[in-house]
Amino acid sequence: MKYSHPPEVRPYLISKSLVPENQETPIHFYYGDIVTEKLFYRRNHFSYPNFASSFYHLPIEGLVHTPKVFSLQEIYSLPSKVIKVVLECSGDKRKLFKPKVFGEQWGKGAISQGIWKGVTLRTLLQYTGLHDSAKEIVFEGYDNGIRPDSNQLFNFSRSLPIEKAIDPETIIAYEYNNQPIPFKHGFPLRLIVPGWYAMASVKWIKKILVIGKEFKGPFQAVDYVYYPNKENDSGKFPVTTINVNSTIQYPLNMQLLHTGVYEINGIAWSGNGRIANVEISIDEGKSWNPCHLTTSSEKHSWVRWNYQWEALKRGEYTILSKAMDSNGNIQPLEPIWNRKGYGYNAIDRIKVKVE
Amino acid sequence: MKYSHPPEVRPYLISKSLVPENQETPIHFYYGDIVTEKLFYRRNHFSYPNFASSFYHLPIEGLVHTPKVFSLQEIYSLPSKVIKVVLECSGDKRKLFKPKVFGEQWGKGAISQGIWKGVTLRTLLQYTGLHDSAKEIVFEGYDNGIRPDSNQLFNFSRSLPIEKAIDPETIIAYEYNNQPIPFKHGFPLRLIVPGWYAMASVKWIKKILVIGKEFKGPFQAVDYVYYPNKENDSGKFPVTTINVNSTIQYPLNMQLLHTGVYEINGIAWSGNGRIANVEISIDEGKSWNPCHLTTSSEKHSWVRWNYQWEALKRGEYTILSKAMDSNGNIQPLEPIWNRKGYGYNAIDRIKVKVE
Repeated sequence: MKYSHPPEVRPYLISKSLVPENQETPIHFYYGDIVTEKLFYRRNHFSYPNFASSFYHLPIEGLVHTPKVFSLQEIYSLPSKVIKVVLECSGDKRKLFKPKVFGEQWGKGAISQGIWKGVTLRTLLQYTGLHDSAKEIVFEGYDNGIRPDSNQLFNFSRSLPIEKAIDPETIIAYEYNNQPIPFKHGFPLRLIVPGWYAMASVKWIKKILVIGKEFKGPFQAVDYVYYPNKENDSGKFPVTTINVNSTIQYPLNMQLLHTGVYEINGIAWSGNGRIANVEISIDEGKSWNPCHLTTSSEKHSWVRWNYQWEALKRGEYTILSKAMDSNGNIQPLEPIWNRKGYGYNAIDRIKVKVE
Repeated sequence: MKYSHPPEVRPYLISKSLVPENQETPIHFYYGDIVTEKLFYRRNHFSYPNFASSFYHLPIEGLVHTPKVFSLQEIYSLPSKVIKVVLECSGDKRKLFKPKVFGEQWGKGAISQGIWKGVTLRTLLQYTGLHDSAKEIVFEGYDNGIRPDSNQLFNFSRSLPIEKAIDPETIIAYEYNNQPIPFKHGFPLRLIVPGWYAMASVKWIKKILVIGKEFKGPFQAVDYVYYPNKENDSGKFPVTTINVNSTIQYPLNMQLLHTGVYEINGIAWSGNGRIANVEISIDEGKSWNPCHLTTSSEKHSWVRWNYQWEALKRGEYTILSKAMDSNGNIQPLEPIWNRKGYGYNAIDRIKVKVE
């Protein structure tokens, strides 16, 4: 019996459900900036689709001048764009809402970052043109199934308004981290909508359809809607842009520490521009200290930050992190509670005890 | 690019810390009764030890008539005992304590079950004999490091009283599930103490020492002690036998269900005899319904139970599970809070919403 010393120790995805597969990134144990396939969180509405990828083609139809079916080779041959993007599930941190919200109990790891390469949707639309009456563009995925609230078979479909669709950063991606997109993340083509929560980034694109009115599919008009009221739908509005947010990676919540000097660190991100600053409080928010940003602050990607903490006095401490983005959005002290539990972005909060 | 359809979906260990490695079993996604190495929870006090297993010998010393060093071959050649055992970390379910307790935030998965094969300690002691003054037997592991509360290097060491040490089910194991024990779980020899929380089942045994007094090592006299008071040590007593306990595996906490018939299921176990029965409540404990035990109830192993639930009315439900063992121990409604968060065994509780 031979063993390697020291034995390998590594973190894994954290299961939230297996059918469909929903597993989160072990974000507290991940210090890279480009999440590998193995640790990229997986979020599905249905079982994985089964389609013949060797015959794959991408049709663009509807309110266009020239409907067109693109082959993968055509798409690969067009001018490409490479972009580092944070993808965050709009249910990230759902388990932190109080009162608690039913549904997948995502912790802080329904978020990952990596490098996507593809062609801009704007480029593809130059081949088809758009009717003046075009209002939204619908992206239909190959994944489908029965929704609990109906007996009908639905494909996962989402729309973008024209202006977001033709944003020069909205791409039809075919590579992730310099490799073909892993099947579980949308092979062969995935829409990537930087700055929006990741339900917008439709996987396994089957068809693109230009329409002249508001799309009302259930993943647009029922789910991925903020319902501020528990009992009725008044005041509802759609989930779109990623809220400014931050997560403390180290120390861990409820960790026991010894007196000493520690580097508190974590990540911060926003769908609304760059991260301008991150502040830390060790005293329940009475005072705030600026953090050092250790990676450059780019649009659509997370920044890493840290703060040297001299934990010289024994006792229990609450540590808070608060990010502000370049548009002046700041994390709120309390999250905006909503019935389906989307968009949690309250100031991050952990407790530690120094012994 | 070729992919297998459907793609494999599987659960993984859940990281609680990487140095030392502490990862829990994804108990809500595990329906086997013999946990494989990959999903067996890992609990360490230090980094993995580094020792030359090819020169491995096991000494038994101290208050014995004939000190002896056993080779592995000798141990393998002695009469063996095979036993299916639940190992549960005494910190299992720690994160459920209220008020919250500092330390590793174990969920419900610091528990696993499998088949251990070895020689009884009683058999080995027949070769050495025991002095009349023998009181406890100390098991020292190869794993060592600096404890936060001292600057000294400690090996992980624990003792058993003579009567527990010579129990015919206390074994020095060398196989797990018909294979040599995986290194991370104690290769080449691990003490297995059925019925006690798993801190007693010392891994990587380096030495066995018979002593004439109470062992006072820090993993015996400081850790693994119930401290019922937050502020002082009054009323403390040692962690030993596994409390009667149960865990609801399905549905998941905060799961959304549709009206229909469901099988609520889970496991139950106790260090004090067999599981006598498990009951379910759907109405916050006002009424209790007997569960069907689907595996035979054996000493030291968990039983599987289920209950058919006709969830025909929409609404929010609290589901409780309550096990009783053959010694009449019943899970309490509230856990016995203790400062280090050991032995949580309150009635298990989840919420679901039927839509």
